[in-house]
Amino acid sequence: MSVLDKVNFPQDLKTLSLAELQTLADEIRRLLIYKIDATGGHFGPNLGFIEPTIALHYVFNSPTDQVVFDVSHQCYTHKILTGRKAYFTNPAKYHEISGYTNPQESEHDWFVVGHTSTDPSLAVGLAMARDLKKEHRNVIAVIGDGSLSGGEAFEGLDNAAALHTNLIIVVNDNEMSIAPNHGGLYGNLALLRRTQGKGEPNFFKALGFDYVYVDDGNNLPSLIRAFEQVKDTPRPTVVHLHTLKGKGCAQAEQNKEAFHWILPGTLEGKNPPATQDSYDSITVDYFLKKHREDPSFIVLNPATPGAVALTPQIRAQLGEGFADVGIAEEHAVACASGLARAGAKPVLAVLSSFIQRAYDQLSQDLALNNNPAVVLVYGGSISGADATHLGCFDMALLGNIPNLVYLAPTSQEEYLAMLNWAVRQTEHAVAIRVPVGPLAAAGRPVATDYSPLNRFETVVSGREVALLGLGNFYHLAEQVHELLEQQLGIRATLINPRYISGVDRECLDRLTEQHRLVVTLEDGIVEGGFGQKVASCCAKNGLKVLNFGAQKEFTDRVPTEELYRRFHLTPQQIVQDIQNALK
Amino acid sequence: MSVLDKVNFPQDLKTLSLAELQTLADEIRRLLIYKIDATGGHFGPNLGFIEPTIALHYVFNSPTDQVVFDVSHQCYTHKILTGRKAYFTNPAKYHEISGYTNPQESEHDWFVVGHTSTDPSLAVGLAMARDLKKEHRNVIAVIGDGSLSGGEAFEGLDNAAALHTNLIIVVNDNEMSIAPNHGGLYGNLALLRRTQGKGEPNFFKALGFDYVYVDDGNNLPSLIRAFEQVKDTPRPTVVHLHTLKGKGCAQAEQNKEAFHWILPGTLEGKNPPATQDSYDSITVDYFLKKHREDPSFIVLNPATPGAVALTPQIRAQLGEGFADVGIAEEHAVACASGLARAGAKPVLAVLSSFIQRAYDQLSQDLALNNNPAVVLVYGGSISGADATHLGCFDMALLGNIPNLVYLAPTSQEEYLAMLNWAVRQTEHAVAIRVPVGPLAAAGRPVATDYSPLNRFETVVSGREVALLGLGNFYHLAEQVHELLEQQLGIRATLINPRYISGVDRECLDRLTEQHRLVVTLEDGIVEGGFGQKVASCCAKNGLKVLNFGAQKEFTDRVPTEELYRRFHLTPQQIVQDIQNALK
Repeated sequence: MSVLDKVNFPQDLKTLSLAELQTLADEIRRLLIYKIDATGGHFGPNLGFIEPTIALHYVFNSPTDQVVFDVSHQCYTHKILTGRKAYFTNPAKYHEISGYTNPQESEHDWFVVGHTSTDPSLAVGLAMARDLKKEHRNVIAVIGDGSLSGGEAFEGLDNAAALHTNLIIVVNDNEMSIAPNHGGLYGNLALLRRTQGKGEPNFFKALGFDYVYVDDGNNLPSLIRAFEQVKDTPRPTVVHLHTLKGKGCAQAEQNKEAFHWILPGTLEGKNPPATQDSYDSITVDYFLKKHREDPSFIVLNPATPGAVALTPQIRAQLGEGFADVGIAEEHAVACASGLARAGAKPVLAVLSSFIQRAYDQLSQDLALNNNPAVVLVYGGSISGADATHLGCFDMALLGNIPNLVYLAPTSQEEYLAMLNWAVRQTEHAVAIRVPVGPLAAAGRPVATDYSPLNRFETVVSGREVALLGLGNFYHLAEQVHELLEQQLGIRATLINPRYISGVDRECLDRLTEQHRLVVTLEDGIVEGGFGQKVASCCAKNGLKVLNFGAQKEFTDRVPTEELYRRFHLTPQQIVQDIQNALK
Repeated sequence: MSVLDKVNFPQDLKTLSLAELQTLADEIRRLLIYKIDATGGHFGPNLGFIEPTIALHYVFNSPTDQVVFDVSHQCYTHKILTGRKAYFTNPAKYHEISGYTNPQESEHDWFVVGHTSTDPSLAVGLAMARDLKKEHRNVIAVIGDGSLSGGEAFEGLDNAAALHTNLIIVVNDNEMSIAPNHGGLYGNLALLRRTQGKGEPNFFKALGFDYVYVDDGNNLPSLIRAFEQVKDTPRPTVVHLHTLKGKGCAQAEQNKEAFHWILPGTLEGKNPPATQDSYDSITVDYFLKKHREDPSFIVLNPATPGAVALTPQIRAQLGEGFADVGIAEEHAVACASGLARAGAKPVLAVLSSFIQRAYDQLSQDLALNNNPAVVLVYGGSISGADATHLGCFDMALLGNIPNLVYLAPTSQEEYLAMLNWAVRQTEHAVAIRVPVGPLAAAGRPVATDYSPLNRFETVVSGREVALLGLGNFYHLAEQVHELLEQQLGIRATLINPRYISGVDRECLDRLTEQHRLVVTLEDGIVEGGFGQKVASCCAKNGLKVLNFGAQKEFTDRVPTEELYRRFHLTPQQIVQDIQNALK
């Protein structure tokens, strides 16, 4: 019988010997390597945080003591030790739980999280509530070094340090963000590692924290000693652990960036790099070309270069033409605005789910100033992602900011034309929703100048029904167009709106003449989005409108096909709804 | 002839003697006290930053050297020294310029700013552009100590410190935010002041900055020496100035919070505190009552307590039931979520213009987790404010976040009922748009339970036209209702929608029966807002809809009456538009 067999909940750890705890760590490590390679998931961060998690649950008493995991890239061992072992040992159950903490799974999880840099603040809330209610418990926030660059983390730490109470911040310093860290703070962490935590200045002490350093953050006795030392402390305290990302898997230890998160089968090399062209690859080609042409062209990315095909090789080729600003989306947007103000040519490459961390900066620092920076929004689409990483909100968010031009290309030619226009022009802040899916050909000439704003492209002039297929959903509109002709004998009008952030009022007003119904299709939530702008414009004329898109909800790992069915987004469902509306 | 008479642009300073520079400072101080008291404006911050501004423009060469002011609460002297003196000396011109920096006013202004904590990032962008373009200039970011608590400032500083280039951060440490500072960082600033900048740890050095301290930050020779020392530095450098907020005005030096920003006539005591009840005052009364009843009730505010009637006296009464988290809206929302998760009763009081700094936290940290925190949004209204402080965007922002219930009360009774429900219930994150304007009486019973979500209240059942008056604009709908009867003989349906974040589909579907037109009125932008949700719902039935509200634009100090006319929001314009739509 393995040690792991005997452990289901934190209390099962309490009676284990140090040797058994070490065996447990080894068993969990083998299990995680096998399981994550089978399902995909966060690999390096979890392998590096096995011993600290065992030590936390050995020393503290969850759920009386509250442990909050930042972003929860590192929570798998915690899940195994808190009643969810079967989901890691039984392949039939692999996909039944989330890759992140989730209170619906366990009383040991305090928040659904998936964006970084939040847990100092969340933990401050828990600690303040404890004190208001005069309860007694330790509140522990686990946060990675990479997450410390995010502004929310700083705001939380700054407030945490001013509390006169128990709050333990465990800094999991594996010397990496998703990609290498960037920012002055990381020089300080390096100094602290170099000096066994004794060096000055000390960032954490400067904020007012008590401070404990653990040099081998994967060594159980050291960890247990450190946690026992700070348990029940009446002071805000940082425990700085130096851990090894990917520990126990040579490939992951050596290539920390590639093994931060892996696809299934990565360890056996079943995932060779894509060789086919994609929207990501043609974007990178464009970046390289512009970089050669214009020394003031620069690509910014907030700590997710791999997710936008900016591999270490491409970054090296871009040289000064690339800057990873760390997990710092607010800074990324404001910095892009500053670059554009001074005449440089910044392009910010950012995921849909993360651009929402910088709404105020998009509005105030960028759009209000009309600085001609370009924002490329990747992964904007209805998807089966975790609730924390949905890409369906960006259009309702960016599309309602004054001055900001938000474009939705429908083909590779149109995308590159829009990108090139956006980079060359000097009048507007421009965001472009990078298409999702395989490269599509335009099959017709595309415009090169998008400065006459909010002009729709009418691709087919028909009657009865007008189909507006925005961005990714233009091809869905084409399919519906074909079905309408086949099944109902309707030759509909087909429109490529091109602009997310405004409607073509003239075009929409003209539709009243020969149309009974306007149909909008968008790859995002309907509420606050493009289609509702169209509805507002058409409804003043009494023209019927159907808006198709996602409902306003946090879907969680629901397969895309199921979401499409649920939201009435299959071509046949749309045709049926159109038929009903025309009755 | 005064020294000020001779000075119009920075170059005019270069030939002045130190004595003349000092005289100039005294003259500007007298001018500012007189002018700000006449017009209202940021008082304390500007009085404390006269000598540093003179020294900056004496040592550096603007606009070749670029000086960026964070939030620009302290830019009046800069304006006087860069071609805009007449706007401070000539009462006829007082209102012709903005209270903030604005590139349209002067080539010495780099950005329109009005939200805090942005300029380290903006300046990093300027510095990076300079280096990419191989130009030579100093880039200087002026930032107050209060602004340093904002996450965007940290992200910017963290990136700035990692640059291997010239970037000078001037920290204007007047020992105050708008109200007193909160956060661990301020302990470190106090240590640095106490030790003449020599103490350890040093927050700025921990990030990697070179560091210079000036103890008397209002002493011209010290300032000039410090700036000359760092001019053309090849390193990111912090110049930490200890200045006196309100310097030269005894009242302002003694009562820094009250004199941060003043109304006209404040120095002569023409502005006694309001004694009439208001939405602010009944909110405070509610806070005090709840605090007495429930020790877990707590009010959070991010550094603008005065703007929401949380005076020092009220804060003292609330004691542990109040926390100013500093300029840290992201933390405020996440902390509220943590408090609610742990069973406390947090209410976050925040201005409309600033809640947009925490979109991701509202979505991920709060709404996704369904933690029952309450957010009170103040000042949400179409107004004649500066472009940086508009209150018209919050409904399009909060109204499209899943799970978040956003309520729009129309009277004091309804507001208190909603607030009480929001605090007591445990199912939803709830935001309430605090009504703007004088207290209104409901004149009818109001609901006490708002948990059946998205149910509109039909106040008058009529026909032909249905008027939906949301929140502040319910009373406008009442006026229109009356005019419709008087002028067109139409007894319209009058609806109080109550919910911003969703529509009552049943109610709207029923309207098709006896109505030809649905009219929505909302005190915010139409795009992405409530009315477009109604349009989307009604347009599927082919029902005509007119959406009234603000256009999507950054209006800048346009009088509210003019905005109403421009947006067709006067009762008579609305009636006219309705009449046209019914033709």
